[in-house]
Amino acid sequence: MDFIDELVIAYRVLAAHGVVDAYGHVSVRKPDDPERYYIARALAPELVTREDIFEFDLDSKAIDDKGQSMYLERYIHGEIFKERPDANAVVHNHSPSVIPFGVTEVPLRPLVNTGAFIGLGVPTFEIRDFQPSGDIIISSPFLGKALADVLGESPAALMRGHGATVVAESVPLVCVRSIYLEVSAKLQMQAITIAGQGGKVIYLDDDEVKATVGRQDAKETWRRGWTLWRAKAVAELQAEEALLRR
Amino acid sequence: MDFIDELVIAYRVLAAHGVVDAYGHVSVRKPDDPERYYIARALAPELVTREDIFEFDLDSKAIDDKGQSMYLERYIHGEIFKERPDANAVVHNHSPSVIPFGVTEVPLRPLVNTGAFIGLGVPTFEIRDFQPSGDIIISSPFLGKALADVLGESPAALMRGHGATVVAESVPLVCVRSIYLEVSAKLQMQAITIAGQGGKVIYLDDDEVKATVGRQDAKETWRRGWTLWRAKAVAELQAEEALLRR
Amino acid sequence: MDFIDELVIAYRVLAAHGVVDAYGHVSVRKPDDPERYYIARALAPELVTREDIFEFDLDSKAIDDKGQSMYLERYIHGEIFKERPDANAVVHNHSPSVIPFGVTEVPLRPLVNTGAFIGLGVPTFEIRDFQPSGDIIISSPFLGKALADVLGESPAALMRGHGATVVAESVPLVCVRSIYLEVSAKLQMQAITIAGQGGKVIYLDDDEVKATVGRQDAKETWRRGWTLWRAKAVAELQAEEALLRR
Amino acid sequence: MDFIDELVIAYRVLAAHGVVDAYGHVSVRKPDDPERYYIARALAPELVTREDIFEFDLDSKAIDDKGQSMYLERYIHGEIFKERPDANAVVHNHSPSVIPFGVTEVPLRPLVNTGAFIGLGVPTFEIRDFQPSGDIIISSPFLGKALADVLGESPAALMRGHGATVVAESVPLVCVRSIYLEVSAKLQMQAITIAGQGGKVIYLDDDEVKATVGRQDAKETWRRGWTLWRAKAVAELQAEEALLRR
Repeated sequence: MDFIDELVIAYRVLAAHGVVDAYGHVSVRKPDDPERYYIARALAPELVTREDIFEFDLDSKAIDDKGQSMYLERYIHGEIFKERPDANAVVHNHSPSVIPFGVTEVPLRPLVNTGAFIGLGVPTFEIRDFQPSGDIIISSPFLGKALADVLGESPAALMRGHGATVVAESVPLVCVRSIYLEVSAKLQMQAITIAGQGGKVIYLDDDEVKATVGRQDAKETWRRGWTLWRAKAVAELQAEEALLRR
Repeated sequence: MDFIDELVIAYRVLAAHGVVDAYGHVSVRKPDDPERYYIARALAPELVTREDIFEFDLDSKAIDDKGQSMYLERYIHGEIFKERPDANAVVHNHSPSVIPFGVTEVPLRPLVNTGAFIGLGVPTFEIRDFQPSGDIIISSPFLGKALADVLGESPAALMRGHGATVVAESVPLVCVRSIYLEVSAKLQMQAITIAGQGGKVIYLDDDEVKATVGRQDAKETWRRGWTLWRAKAVAELQAEEALLRR
Repeated sequence: MDFIDELVIAYRVLAAHGVVDAYGHVSVRKPDDPERYYIARALAPELVTREDIFEFDLDSKAIDDKGQSMYLERYIHGEIFKERPDANAVVHNHSPSVIPFGVTEVPLRPLVNTGAFIGLGVPTFEIRDFQPSGDIIISSPFLGKALADVLGESPAALMRGHGATVVAESVPLVCVRSIYLEVSAKLQMQAITIAGQGGKVIYLDDDEVKATVGRQDAKETWRRGWTLWRAKAVAELQAEEALLRR
Repeated sequence: MDFIDELVIAYRVLAAHGVVDAYGHVSVRKPDDPERYYIARALAPELVTREDIFEFDLDSKAIDDKGQSMYLERYIHGEIFKERPDANAVVHNHSPSVIPFGVTEVPLRPLVNTGAFIGLGVPTFEIRDFQPSGDIIISSPFLGKALADVLGESPAALMRGHGATVVAESVPLVCVRSIYLEVSAKLQMQAITIAGQGGKVIYLDDDEVKATVGRQDAKETWRRGWTLWRAKAVAELQAEEALLRR
């Protein structure tokens, strides 16, 4: 199983958690050439197989598109890979509990250990700051770079009226972060509901964020999730292949 | 696979997304005769097969009912097909996140790119404006026409105390719109919850709506959802047929 | 398929909709002897098969218990069958969206056509009105009669801190009502959330309730749900039997 | 089927109810040696099989770790087994409806008969009371003992920014309590939503708690849930084994 198989699995894992629906994508930087990345052609995540993965340069031009249509928003990936040498994987999604935070003035905050990375900062990208009101998606290198600039050194950025973009140094970690961004956003919405107007919610403080994320990174405790979800996705892919062989 | 097979698949797709439950229906205008349409007999969406699809004239009289019972609310479809020559497909549903907006004074508004079409207008049909308080369903040509008039040129209308009706130029698009009407309504409810009483929620503005819908229509990016959901529904139908042949 | 098979199916249908979980039960009056009823022994709904159904008199004494344990709360059924000759089926459940209405002063109200029967009245049973604070369940004929008295001529009653009880003239209708009681309660909670503190929610008025329920009863449009859910439950039961025969 | 098989089943039951996701664990005290307990190695609950269960002393040192990694938070279990001789089973989870109560000042309260045990007291463990702000998990005997002290004689404790810990005299009961802690927390959140700011919610009073829990313990009515969930988990495990044998 190589890095392309892992990318296919990532599409399934994200879909299984509702972090992507018919839209959304995940990419990986080429292991032996940091100026290239891989992502699927324009296809719903659950339909992606190995044959649907294509190679791109960092200007998001396909090396060989074989006549297929590509994601209009692939510039999200290319421009972030340019600006963030530490990032080897990028997810763009329409994560349902995350979107509401992108359209309000209530910031997403770290509330639980598995979402501690939110405390590293999750800025909101307001597309109106970079173009007159128009199509809300990221369909040009210019907008991709603008998003990468707003993202800065953060693990994720919300996109107003649209969704979120998450980065990490590996495909497994970018999936784990995407899933717990959704989980934590839902928990925060529920805490706000319980606390009531003006009620107090206790978030992780900076030292808690630093120590918790530090331990998660050092001991890779986040791998426990990936191991489970990967096993389920592999079983699903094998069942589909068995059906096709009949 | 012809337009009738596509209509059967649409019933499955809508049920799989919870946009219809035991009730709700989808119709298609006859491709070579704009004065006729097809819809299932009175049956729960998940049970509809090719044999359950019947032909109607625009007065919603079955061409040959073969002794079967028809939807009491079929006038929704016939009257809209009369008033809206651009509409070739109509969905009537009890979409669970949409109904609450129909009974409050809070308008459904465009919040996310996939629901941008909401910005084209989603009026609410108040049946009390057209009859003394009585049965809440659309069981006559008169009420069907009243609904069509309130709908006007919009892609959808809410029906107070009842559900929603969605139209489009094709069966795939009417399903995509019905599903993202539900998705967007849920997102708006969550945004309102997070923002709190009097809190600000940022919606797509008119230029964003126009540009986003324009691109979705021109590039048919909405087809990505249909391709996925259609594939799943076809697999489900084939599995059922395989079971029946045993 | 006789009335006992139908009762087994009802257990499955209610569990499939989350209206009952590990607890909750449904009973049917004996067709040819109104002084008897049938209900399962003390067992989780999803595990109930034909062999688990027992006959009781209206004092809720098993005719032949075969040494099995019976529901402590069976008096709910017997006492209602005594007081309501029109009722031939009773459901007791812990329906998750309904329970919150039983512990607040916000009444459940008719909001949507499928839940129009709520407008016939859904009183709340406060067990503290009938005993000093104690065990919250209905474990005696006295408490069963008290519940039946509060229920009166209504289709359902909420039970504070506990759940709900629903009645109807048949097993299919009591299931349909139980499911749409849950659906409607959830819709009302969402409408309240959207409308905000002091916001307006439009409910069905008395004439709408009367006309809508009248048509549902006269045309039995509620059977469309039962037909679907029954088909699914039968398929599930057959699949289980096939597995057991292997 | 011995106590280790029962522990494996408990992992499945908790995962099936969403009470644990990729994280969370359940332990059991050794039946014939109260100074020992069993828990899985560091693994996601749904992947745990009999081979993954290890024996520990009450200082949470593995008797024979066979070179495997263990849960960093196993001290939760060992320290509670030391302080609570009545407890023979412990669950630590990230139960999604429970976490929000741990980060607000709104106490979890007994609202429904199946959650009556909440009335015995569910204190919140604030880790900042025992260490300067840092990693939010329980990764030392010191923190494990601190949690056990806050828990005291209660059936469960919330952990701010983290999750909950639940105890009982047996594995079946600790699962039942974990599941209804989640169910009841969700019901309370919904009741608060319906009641609105300052609105009244009626909880079980002390006598209701005492009588309801007393009956549940005396008649073991809580076993009905376990019987169902255990049957489903066993069927799932058998299906997996059958697949592996192919």
